[in-house]
Amino acid sequence: MSPWHAAQPGDHLGVIDTPSLILDLDAFERNLQRMADALRGHDVRLRAHSKSHKCPEIALRQVARGAVGICCQKVSEAAVFVDAGIQDVLITNEVMGDVKLRHLAALASRARIGVLVDHPQQVQALALAAKAHAVTLDVYVEVNVGANRCGVAPGDEAVRLALQIAASPTLRFAGLQCYHGPAQHLRAPQDRAAAIGSAAQAARMTRQAIEACGVAVERVTGGGTGSFVHERDSGIFDEIQAGSYVFMDRDYGDNQRGEGDVAFEHALFVRTTVMSRATATHAVVDAGLKASSVDSGMPTVWQRGDLRYTKAADEHGVLVTADAAALSLGDQLMLVPGHCDPTVNLYDELICVRGERVEALWPIAARGALL
Amino acid sequence: MSPWHAAQPGDHLGVIDTPSLILDLDAFERNLQRMADALRGHDVRLRAHSKSHKCPEIALRQVARGAVGICCQKVSEAAVFVDAGIQDVLITNEVMGDVKLRHLAALASRARIGVLVDHPQQVQALALAAKAHAVTLDVYVEVNVGANRCGVAPGDEAVRLALQIAASPTLRFAGLQCYHGPAQHLRAPQDRAAAIGSAAQAARMTRQAIEACGVAVERVTGGGTGSFVHERDSGIFDEIQAGSYVFMDRDYGDNQRGEGDVAFEHALFVRTTVMSRATATHAVVDAGLKASSVDSGMPTVWQRGDLRYTKAADEHGVLVTADAAALSLGDQLMLVPGHCDPTVNLYDELICVRGERVEALWPIAARGALL
Repeated sequence: MSPWHAAQPGDHLGVIDTPSLILDLDAFERNLQRMADALRGHDVRLRAHSKSHKCPEIALRQVARGAVGICCQKVSEAAVFVDAGIQDVLITNEVMGDVKLRHLAALASRARIGVLVDHPQQVQALALAAKAHAVTLDVYVEVNVGANRCGVAPGDEAVRLALQIAASPTLRFAGLQCYHGPAQHLRAPQDRAAAIGSAAQAARMTRQAIEACGVAVERVTGGGTGSFVHERDSGIFDEIQAGSYVFMDRDYGDNQRGEGDVAFEHALFVRTTVMSRATATHAVVDAGLKASSVDSGMPTVWQRGDLRYTKAADEHGVLVTADAAALSLGDQLMLVPGHCDPTVNLYDELICVRGERVEALWPIAARGALL
Repeated sequence: MSPWHAAQPGDHLGVIDTPSLILDLDAFERNLQRMADALRGHDVRLRAHSKSHKCPEIALRQVARGAVGICCQKVSEAAVFVDAGIQDVLITNEVMGDVKLRHLAALASRARIGVLVDHPQQVQALALAAKAHAVTLDVYVEVNVGANRCGVAPGDEAVRLALQIAASPTLRFAGLQCYHGPAQHLRAPQDRAAAIGSAAQAARMTRQAIEACGVAVERVTGGGTGSFVHERDSGIFDEIQAGSYVFMDRDYGDNQRGEGDVAFEHALFVRTTVMSRATATHAVVDAGLKASSVDSGMPTVWQRGDLRYTKAADEHGVLVTADAAALSLGDQLMLVPGHCDPTVNLYDELICVRGERVEALWPIAARGALL
C-alpha cells in the first residue's frame, strides 16, 4: 500500500497523484439509476455482483436502490461485506476446504448466506459445517448452461443434487445458478441473445425436472452486465447478478449494442501522468499492468482518439501518437481499463470525483480477499 | 484483504488456505547464493530489484548477502523500503508530479536516493525539489539501449543531460541507466547475448562521450535476471539490477539456458485447491487471474506434467487433463505463475515454507504502492 493517499476530498482533479483509480460519481449514479429503470416492472430482482467493485460503499448504494443484496466469489469477500452491514450474500462459487467452510458457516449466523454446489461431496461438507455451527445455508445447484466451467449438466445430474440438498436438515435448496459468462462478451447482440436463449432453455428444463420430483425451485439466478436484458426477458430467470454495470470497461464497451440493451457509461478510470517523452512518436505514462489489468487487452485513452495505449510493462504504459505536439511531459490522462474487476483489485481506494473535485475516498475493503 | 491469514507458522503445507502465495525458503536461499556466487570475483555489484518481491524481509536478506541496496519503480515503494531500513535505493524510473517529488526529496534526508531522467525538464524539477528539502539526489541518465521505452538516445542527448545534472548544485550525476528489458525474454541464449552486446556498445560510447567532456561516469547500471551474465561480462556495466532471480517464473523458465547462464530455481508458487470436478476432462481450481497474473501467459502446474492450466477467469482456473482419475475435488496443487512481479502484487503476505512446514509469514509491505 502506498504510504500516502493519492488525493483528499476537496482536491481539484489536476492535483491527484497518479496512477490512481477514479470513480466519476455522476456517471456511476446514472448507471445505478439505469439498472433500476431496466428492471422496473419486471418480476426480476437485482443481486449486484460485488466482485467488480469490492467496495462496501458501492454495495450499500446498490441495496439502497433496490438490490436484494450482493453476490461475491469468495468467502473472505462475503465476510468483508457482512461486516459492512450487507444482510444477504450469495457466494457464486463452489467452496472447498475446512477453513473456508468454517468461516462460511460462521457468517450464516450473522446474515443470509448462499453458496453453490456441483458435486455431492460439496453438499455433504456444507451440511456438516452448517450442523457444527447450528446454522442453515442456502444452497444453489450450479448448472452448466454454456460456460463450460463449473456446474453440472442440465437435467438429471442437477435433479440428484437438488434432492440431496432438500433432504439435508441444515441446508435449504434455494434454486439454480445458471450463469453464462462468455455470452456477455460476444460482440454481436444476436449472438448474446442466442446464447442466453439456449441457457434459458437449459434452466427451464432443469427447473421442470426438479419440480416434477416435488421439490420447489424458488429462484433461477444468473446474468451479468453484457447479457442481463436477455435473462430478464427470458421468463425463467428471476434474479440478475450484474456487477460491471456500475463502472463499465473497455471490453464491455466493445460490445455492439442491440436494440433493447442499456447504455451504461464509463465511470471508472485510471488517472495517469506522462513521465517520459523521449521521442516524438511515443510517450510513456506511469500506469502499467500493475495499474490497469491487461488480461482483456489494453486500456484506451478517454476522449483522446489521437492516442493509442499499445504496450504495458509492470509500471510503464507506452502511448503512440502521430502528432509530436499531442502530449507534454507531466500531462495527465484518463484511461478506460480493459477489464474493471482485476483493475479495481489493484487499488486500496477509489478516488470519487464529481466534476473537477474529489468528493470522497472509498476503501476497496475486499481488495485482495482471495480466500 | 482477507480477514484471516491463509496459514500460521508451524502449519503443515496441507492445511494452508488457498489461493495463497508460497515461498519455498530452501529454493529461495539457494537462489540468493547462486547470485552471490555468479558475481564473486567480478567487479560488478548487485542492486537487487524489489519490484519483483515488494517485501522488506527479502530486501534485507539480499543486502545481507552483499547487495549494495535495492532498486524499485515507484517513490512510494522506496518509502516502504527506507522505512524498513534499506539505506540505498535507486528508483529506476522517471518521476513526474509535485507530490511525488516532495516525497522523493524528503526520503533523501533519510537514505541515499537515486532517480532517472530522460528530459531536461525532469532535471530542473529534481533540482528544485532537492533544494527545497536541502538534500542531494543521485541522478542517472537513462539511455535507450534497445528497449525503446524510456531513455534518451545514446551519445549527444545523454551528454547534454549529464552536463545539466553535473551543473546543478543539489544534484549529483551518478551514472547511466542502461536497462534492456525485452532482451531478458528472448528465448535463445545467442539472441540475449547479441542484444546485450549492442546495449553494452551504446553504453560504452555514451560513457566515453560524457567523460570526454570532463564529467566522470561513476556507474553504469542495468541488467536483469534473464540477461545479467552478459552485462556482468561486458566490461562496461558495474551494477546489476536483477530481481526475479529470487523467485523465477514460468516466463523466465521458458528461456533456453546458455552455457554460462545460472540455473535459478522456481521458489514462488500459488497454492490452489480443486473446487469443481464437474466433468472427466477438466477441473476448476480456486486460483484465477486475481491470484496469478496472466499478462505473460498462463501458469503451469508444478510437477504435474499431466495437467494443463488452460484458462483463467477472475477467480477460476480451468485445468485440462486426459485422465479422469488424475485429480479429485479438494486436491491441492502448486502453480508456477506466468509472471512473478504482478502476481506478488496481488497478495498481502508470503507464506514461507521449509519442506512441508510453514516457517514464517512475510508481509508484502509495498504491495499496491503505485504512487
